[in-house]
Amino acid sequence: MGDARETSESNIDVLIIGAGPAGLMAAASLAHLKVPFRIVDRRRTKIFTGQADGLQCRSLEIFDSLGFADRVWKEANHMIEICMWNPGPDGVIRRSDRIPDTIVGLSRFQQIVLHQGRIERFFLDNIDKYTEKKWGGVERGTLPESLEIGMTGEYPVKVVLRGLSDEEVEVKQVIVSGEKSVGNIGSDGLFRSNLGDAAEDEEEELIRQSKKRGGESEIVNTKYVIGCDGARSWTRRALGFELQGEATDFIWGVMDIIPITDFPDIRMRCAIHSANDGSLMVIPRENRLVRLYIQLKEVTPDASGRADRSKITPALIFGAAQKILRPYKIDYEYCDWWTAYQIGQRVGTSFSDDTNRVFLAGDAVHTHSPKAGQGMNVSMQDSYNLAWKVGLVAKGICKPSILSSYQSERRRVAKDLIEFDHKFARLFSGRPASDVMDAEGVSMEEFKDAFLKGNLFASGLSVNYGPSNLVVKPGNPAEQGDGSTRSSLLEGTPHNLTEEEFAKKQALASGLPVGMRFNSFKVLNQACARPWHLQERLKLDGRFRIVLFAGNILAPEQKQRVQTFCDKLDAPTSFLRRATPKDDKIDSVVEILTIHSAKRTETELLRDFPEILHPFDAHNGWDYNKVFVDDVSYHEGFGDAHTNYGVNKERGCVVAVRPDQYVGWIGELEDFEQLTNYFEGCLLLRDQA
Amino acid sequence: MGDARETSESNIDVLIIGAGPAGLMAAASLAHLKVPFRIVDRRRTKIFTGQADGLQCRSLEIFDSLGFADRVWKEANHMIEICMWNPGPDGVIRRSDRIPDTIVGLSRFQQIVLHQGRIERFFLDNIDKYTEKKWGGVERGTLPESLEIGMTGEYPVKVVLRGLSDEEVEVKQVIVSGEKSVGNIGSDGLFRSNLGDAAEDEEEELIRQSKKRGGESEIVNTKYVIGCDGARSWTRRALGFELQGEATDFIWGVMDIIPITDFPDIRMRCAIHSANDGSLMVIPRENRLVRLYIQLKEVTPDASGRADRSKITPALIFGAAQKILRPYKIDYEYCDWWTAYQIGQRVGTSFSDDTNRVFLAGDAVHTHSPKAGQGMNVSMQDSYNLAWKVGLVAKGICKPSILSSYQSERRRVAKDLIEFDHKFARLFSGRPASDVMDAEGVSMEEFKDAFLKGNLFASGLSVNYGPSNLVVKPGNPAEQGDGSTRSSLLEGTPHNLTEEEFAKKQALASGLPVGMRFNSFKVLNQACARPWHLQERLKLDGRFRIVLFAGNILAPEQKQRVQTFCDKLDAPTSFLRRATPKDDKIDSVVEILTIHSAKRTETELLRDFPEILHPFDAHNGWDYNKVFVDDVSYHEGFGDAHTNYGVNKERGCVVAVRPDQYVGWIGELEDFEQLTNYFEGCLLLRDQA
Repeated sequence: MGDARETSESNIDVLIIGAGPAGLMAAASLAHLKVPFRIVDRRRTKIFTGQADGLQCRSLEIFDSLGFADRVWKEANHMIEICMWNPGPDGVIRRSDRIPDTIVGLSRFQQIVLHQGRIERFFLDNIDKYTEKKWGGVERGTLPESLEIGMTGEYPVKVVLRGLSDEEVEVKQVIVSGEKSVGNIGSDGLFRSNLGDAAEDEEEELIRQSKKRGGESEIVNTKYVIGCDGARSWTRRALGFELQGEATDFIWGVMDIIPITDFPDIRMRCAIHSANDGSLMVIPRENRLVRLYIQLKEVTPDASGRADRSKITPALIFGAAQKILRPYKIDYEYCDWWTAYQIGQRVGTSFSDDTNRVFLAGDAVHTHSPKAGQGMNVSMQDSYNLAWKVGLVAKGICKPSILSSYQSERRRVAKDLIEFDHKFARLFSGRPASDVMDAEGVSMEEFKDAFLKGNLFASGLSVNYGPSNLVVKPGNPAEQGDGSTRSSLLEGTPHNLTEEEFAKKQALASGLPVGMRFNSFKVLNQACARPWHLQERLKLDGRFRIVLFAGNILAPEQKQRVQTFCDKLDAPTSFLRRATPKDDKIDSVVEILTIHSAKRTETELLRDFPEILHPFDAHNGWDYNKVFVDDVSYHEGFGDAHTNYGVNKERGCVVAVRPDQYVGWIGELEDFEQLTNYFEGCLLLRDQA
Repeated sequence: MGDARETSESNIDVLIIGAGPAGLMAAASLAHLKVPFRIVDRRRTKIFTGQADGLQCRSLEIFDSLGFADRVWKEANHMIEICMWNPGPDGVIRRSDRIPDTIVGLSRFQQIVLHQGRIERFFLDNIDKYTEKKWGGVERGTLPESLEIGMTGEYPVKVVLRGLSDEEVEVKQVIVSGEKSVGNIGSDGLFRSNLGDAAEDEEEELIRQSKKRGGESEIVNTKYVIGCDGARSWTRRALGFELQGEATDFIWGVMDIIPITDFPDIRMRCAIHSANDGSLMVIPRENRLVRLYIQLKEVTPDASGRADRSKITPALIFGAAQKILRPYKIDYEYCDWWTAYQIGQRVGTSFSDDTNRVFLAGDAVHTHSPKAGQGMNVSMQDSYNLAWKVGLVAKGICKPSILSSYQSERRRVAKDLIEFDHKFARLFSGRPASDVMDAEGVSMEEFKDAFLKGNLFASGLSVNYGPSNLVVKPGNPAEQGDGSTRSSLLEGTPHNLTEEEFAKKQALASGLPVGMRFNSFKVLNQACARPWHLQERLKLDGRFRIVLFAGNILAPEQKQRVQTFCDKLDAPTSFLRRATPKDDKIDSVVEILTIHSAKRTETELLRDFPEILHPFDAHNGWDYNKVFVDDVSYHEGFGDAHTNYGVNKERGCVVAVRPDQYVGWIGELEDFEQLTNYFEGCLLLRDQA
């Protein structure tokens, strides 16, 4: 071992490396699934200022599935409108357009802004709340030293971790002294940006130091590793994977300030193209702060393609902003944080090792420019996609083959993101065309179009996962455009749907595209009439769900259809019983939620619905929280769920929903065999007794 | 002193006795006002189960003004519908009516249910957050021993407090052993109920014991005492006041259980009159619990008017419930809490001492039956009404004469409550009439009418305070129906409005009755387009507010009216400047909020509004959070505030709002002198420099 001290050794289901938003999302997800995990991070504390800030609709829906969207919503600044400013014929900037920041009707949430440090705080509180034994928290000042993937045993991955001393853990933070004489120059984020000079082999140096002083190390044997350790990911390098892509010549500065300005839209999100001084984005934030993204036209990369960071100071950045905003004046007394970065887009060659034991998520597999407010969101969505799969496989609920869908689903999202960012950066950093004859300039119409498209993309709600054993739709799972072939995707996917067959099934719920997230509308609890956004009933707890649109339950023929469906579900040999561990409750692996369309006041839970839809428990009585009605509420309007989901009110349909709220399968009440096939494709079913 | 140890002595602005909901509301309010206070309670811990549970709309609005309505809303059970069950012609109970539990459109909140222990937890967290120096928390195991009201000095009230030992603080809790063989018999609340046998002189016994063992005591000199020490209030007895009223013969039991039942409306609020077995109320609660209020017809008071508590067991109570609910079956495995009480209504003879130094709130001055879900609400609303008055007088912001309005405002509410409860108890506990000829029975139509009226009353939103120096409307402040004459109410109230003059002013904002709470509709922030419920901008921080309905600010004539109004506000001798302490910000005593009716996108904050409406600060720039527009939002509809408030969109009006959100004065933009009079009536204005 070579170490001065004895090395301890222990087992854990999942080891998460890195406690930024992606790592914390993985940890929170596993906590909600009750899967044992550990999470380590080199840094001593969480982020306090600066860094990422934009939160997409989808991220808020995910936070809600964990139970803390309300805390974020309450503290955040809500960005409502985007104002586009362009040069007029006289070259002076003027407001040319206003568009809603979030597309209307897309989600029950809208895009908001809150700094990463608060998000991390909410994650930590949430993990603490959902961890069964008292959670020890993130193991900080801890670095992985080696990683070996074995082929056998319950815990085949061996990771050596090393604890750093307080001095070792201190990241060298170069403070650039401010040239501006008045005002507080905030924290410098440059050391973290891609213009910083932290070398990739810094970890190795730290490990050498620690070994030299006889520092502590330990062996962790684990089922799975999730590497969320950022753009310079140690885990990625340990796997021998790369980030592929290129840097551009565009250099941008970022400042979080409390502005003193006569610019009228300083509390709106603004995209400003000046005639000749570059572009600027305004992101209004919480606590009176405003973030400015400022193009630095005066700084250009050298022959090696890297910009000289010593030139970049707050005074230089702010000077550029003042020029762009002319004739409006802007100044500040307080600066909270600043940084600069060189725009570039890179994506990881692979998102996991060949045996699906070690996974990469977040910045470790995709980096791009921060302006679109995408980075933290896509990163968290990576690990939200991954963690329940890893967790359910570790628990023996799901087949290991579902793990291949992580790369096929998320690498394509990353590639789409990179592509969007590449195009957007060019349009935003380009000089605006002075007229239609100005071929070298950027057309402001084209920019607006890109912005609008980007707006949908940026919501996180356009994600549409391809076919796999988790998503039943036509197509070859092996051709998911992720650049890799993963034969295990095909295992246990006996779904050979033609486009025509699929279109018929999809038409049963045209508002719930298979492969996309389950949209949310309000329905009422049948037993108590309380309105719920349906998504509020799709919390992340590792359960798949069957949403039974039961149609008009008071029509005798329809009632019989529902009864027949429920009899099959309730049969001793049904997939539902076979998926459920022997002593667990019947809703512990797959939960059934019912939505019917009869009048609430004419319908009664116990009288009109088979018991499998509201299971009985000797201690708690019947379950009153699983059957809902699409009816008018007293105080919160009418969700009109059937119309919005495109489901027939009389006949209904059946929808299988993944634990992460994505639609996996749609069919008729009679398609019980296909429904069984879906769950056979992804769940480990017990043999019949 | 006679004590073995030396007695310490200290000063504090406000001493609160009792840390139930009323006491905690006083403490939270003072914390938000930054007024130093202490709060003591005899009990060792807060409530964990049972006790009060219903929360009115108004209580939720108040919680929101303190910042924690969201926590309550999230955890609570939402009661949506009331089902009335009455005997049919065959004598069997059947559902006769459904009505919404909260009147539609009354408030942005609806009535909900959450047990008192959680409310107390949220209060404690909130006080902690808003207390400037780290708050030591409630001083538990502490009892007042004597109280002297002096006439001079800054801290004229002298209270001796005594710390109890752990044994002394234990309340004797008689556990009644359950006769029911199956199931958990929960905590017994009988010792706290009015059937318990805790004697009124128990405190004196405890003090004797403490003195005997040489226990610690301390002297606290204070400006004000708020006694929230419950139905057997030590403070009330120290003042020599009484609760006046009578007990009825009606005895009711209460059980919090997880029911196992085929009764179809068990998750609704139900009022059930059986033909001959008594009445029952169902209150569905959080965590699958249901509270049953059960009439005990078999228990009657003895000659002394008191019921024999030894007869009352969970088996007796539950047996009565089972009879009332027949032919439906009900059972339980888990009981969380139970108690019983004898219905009675009592109100305190006076709510404060003659010098307005010692005040009583909550159960100390009114007791009644718990079924209407009123007790905790009215108690908290008492101290919410009182605490800001005491706090602002203690700080030297308000005139001491405003303190008399506490009794005139709240004693009338208490009397209305008592009267309602008296009538309701008779109707609910009475046998339903078998037909129209059954003169002795209770008409179910009459009961439903009372229920509907009670519903408005129970929202807490029908409260309408009479004239005083805080509420400008016609009438004699001394005749406020509270049974007392308080001449100081007349001091500094130079408002001699005729009914006719007042009607004209009231017509300027017909949806904002003077004396009632400021209703809430959504408006948009002019600078960032974010929708806010206006009430969200009326947080409790001790500030009065002027809501300036600025009308159509883009019409030149109207703009001039606004300019003239603002010039007067901004003048060095204006009441606004004279009310504001020299080095404080201009919005620190009276905040001005503006709502205009021009189109948002055509209006600009800095260009169109005088600076006094969005004050400048060298560090923070202009204030972007004070000017709102009544316009359509992208995602949250149209608040239509002018229509809802009954305000003319072109000309607007001016509304003075008290720190507790009650409307104090309404006038035209030209009525600056009357507005000045209003603030001269309640604020201490500095002499002109």
